Amino acid sequence: MDLKKEISKRGELFNKELDAFLSRRSPENLYDASRHLPMAGGKRLRPVLCMISCEAVSGDFKKVMPFALAVEIIHNFSLVHDDIMDKSTLRRGMKTVHIEYGEPTAIIAGDLLFAKAFEALEKYPKNTPSFHQLFQYLTQSVIEVCEGQQLDMNFEKRFIVEESEYLEMIKMKTSALFRISCEGGALAGGANEEVQQALREYGMSLGLAFQIRDDYLDMSSDPETLGKDIGNDIRNGKKTIIAVHSLTHATGDDKKILTDIFGKATASAKEVTQVYHVFDRVGSIDYAKEKAEEYCTVAKDALKILEDSTAKQVLVALADYAMTREK
Amino acid sequence: MDLKKEISKRGELFNKELDAFLSRRSPENLYDASRHLPMAGGKRLRPVLCMISCEAVSGDFKKVMPFALAVEIIHNFSLVHDDIMDKSTLRRGMKTVHIEYGEPTAIIAGDLLFAKAFEALEKYPKNTPSFHQLFQYLTQSVIEVCEGQQLDMNFEKRFIVEESEYLEMIKMKTSALFRISCEGGALAGGANEEVQQALREYGMSLGLAFQIRDDYLDMSSDPETLGKDIGNDIRNGKKTIIAVHSLTHATGDDKKILTDIFGKATASAKEVTQVYHVFDRVGSIDYAKEKAEEYCTVAKDALKILEDSTAKQVLVALADYAMTREK
Repeated sequence: MDLKKEISKRGELFNKELDAFLSRRSPENLYDASRHLPMAGGKRLRPVLCMISCEAVSGDFKKVMPFALAVEIIHNFSLVHDDIMDKSTLRRGMKTVHIEYGEPTAIIAGDLLFAKAFEALEKYPKNTPSFHQLFQYLTQSVIEVCEGQQLDMNFEKRFIVEESEYLEMIKMKTSALFRISCEGGALAGGANEEVQQALREYGMSLGLAFQIRDDYLDMSSDPETLGKDIGNDIRNGKKTIIAVHSLTHATGDDKKILTDIFGKATASAKEVTQVYHVFDRVGSIDYAKEKAEEYCTVAKDALKILEDSTAKQVLVALADYAMTREK
Repeated sequence: MDLKKEISKRGELFNKELDAFLSRRSPENLYDASRHLPMAGGKRLRPVLCMISCEAVSGDFKKVMPFALAVEIIHNFSLVHDDIMDKSTLRRGMKTVHIEYGEPTAIIAGDLLFAKAFEALEKYPKNTPSFHQLFQYLTQSVIEVCEGQQLDMNFEKRFIVEESEYLEMIKMKTSALFRISCEGGALAGGANEEVQQALREYGMSLGLAFQIRDDYLDMSSDPETLGKDIGNDIRNGKKTIIAVHSLTHATGDDKKILTDIFGKATASAKEVTQVYHVFDRVGSIDYAKEKAEEYCTVAKDALKILEDSTAKQVLVALADYAMTREK
């Protein structure tokens, strides 16, 4: 089983649906702005998880396609608005929507994507048994994404954030869409409650692992070549799992360095590097790596209930990929 | 029949539902930001239209309550984001959300309201016959509101906009929510197709009348006391029905004044007044007043199919109010 091939095969099918669904119409500048990010690629992890979860319960993935569209479009809507909030200028190697089309149009383009996500569910024939539940999954997950995003911003203003609070935040901000992709796929595919619950657990843990591995990868490169984003994260006091761990475990001089520099908007490159070395010395970078592995194990354990199939193997391989990927 | 009393009676019932539905939870600053505008009052025209349309077809207005919540929340979400785009600082006599809570939180607060609007529909029991249609009304109207908002911005950059284009724009930006309030109320109340269609027509025409009367009221005050907004609308080249009419009907010197000043960002107060006088001389201000009256007549005509009831009388009185209101 070739993971990359299995993913890209489904990703390509999905891309055709997405391209058709987000077709251009008047006003063209609004639709161009809405298509800018979703049509720029991306891994399509969420819709592929929808499809594979559906297949893993012997379902026809076509049954989850409208929901897969909805989830991917919600993901993109949230990125468009996040980039405005964070004043980011680049994503997926391209100008962000607000840089290319101006902020007012970017705000509306995000709103339009949001509405189109719900419109995707209209593809389900009336009286589709799972419709009501899929609709609820989508609504609740967007609420969670909004709440998680606000918590993430609030945490930047606090010095100490408990690990449990951090985990609660990424469960909402990142994991919610992974979770509903898997449980939605299982539901659309006709799985029983127990299997739906297992795939829900898998999706949630996989999402946590992805986010934590992201935190790890951002911080595990050579300190001299630490990217601009890392410097900014340290200057903004961004609460990654690594920062959360260090802030609660550092002592003595290390603690003082964090107190003085972490969250200091004007920190120099040298100071940023000092913070990095504290993270490393305290063992917070290794801790993040292990924590991601832990969640991958939980994710894989949840799959034990499923009968063997190529789809199941893909889900297992995805969890392995989540804890070993280097970018 | 006392129109004000009939409206406020229903408005108060609605406000209780809205207050409970938008209850505070963590993160509090996000929920406070989301509640800021909707709990600041407003006429509640849309939810009251939902309720009265439902009653006018002998329905129990409780059946339309979740939908009424959804429509009012969508209206508020769009205002929160509009105010960011327009850089407005005041609304309903209060600071706008982004001024009070900062732009990032205002963007998320709008997104959260959007999601909560759909969540309101979850109040309908599973298998509610009208659910699928109400869901579609909501989704399609938000898409229209987004498209209309973008068209409105695009029109500012064009010198000539046809009246038909202007009407198409306000049908989307303003009338869509009026329209679905009335047709949604009729549907939830159990009306047949013909009656639903009549209330759809009523709502759409009423929405057009409200928007056009707004354009008229903004411009019909004494030119010396023309508000800041009017000056800005003229400086931004905002295509109200009055501007659209003047730009296509002015000739000679009047045409030259418009060409020189309308849409000129640096226009002085005196120049703004000159433009106002052109609008007046060309008959565009009177034209707006008549056009609003015309749509009110269409709205009232659509009601003829309904049996007499207090609710019907309220709808008629609302149309009369739409063309006579002074603020």
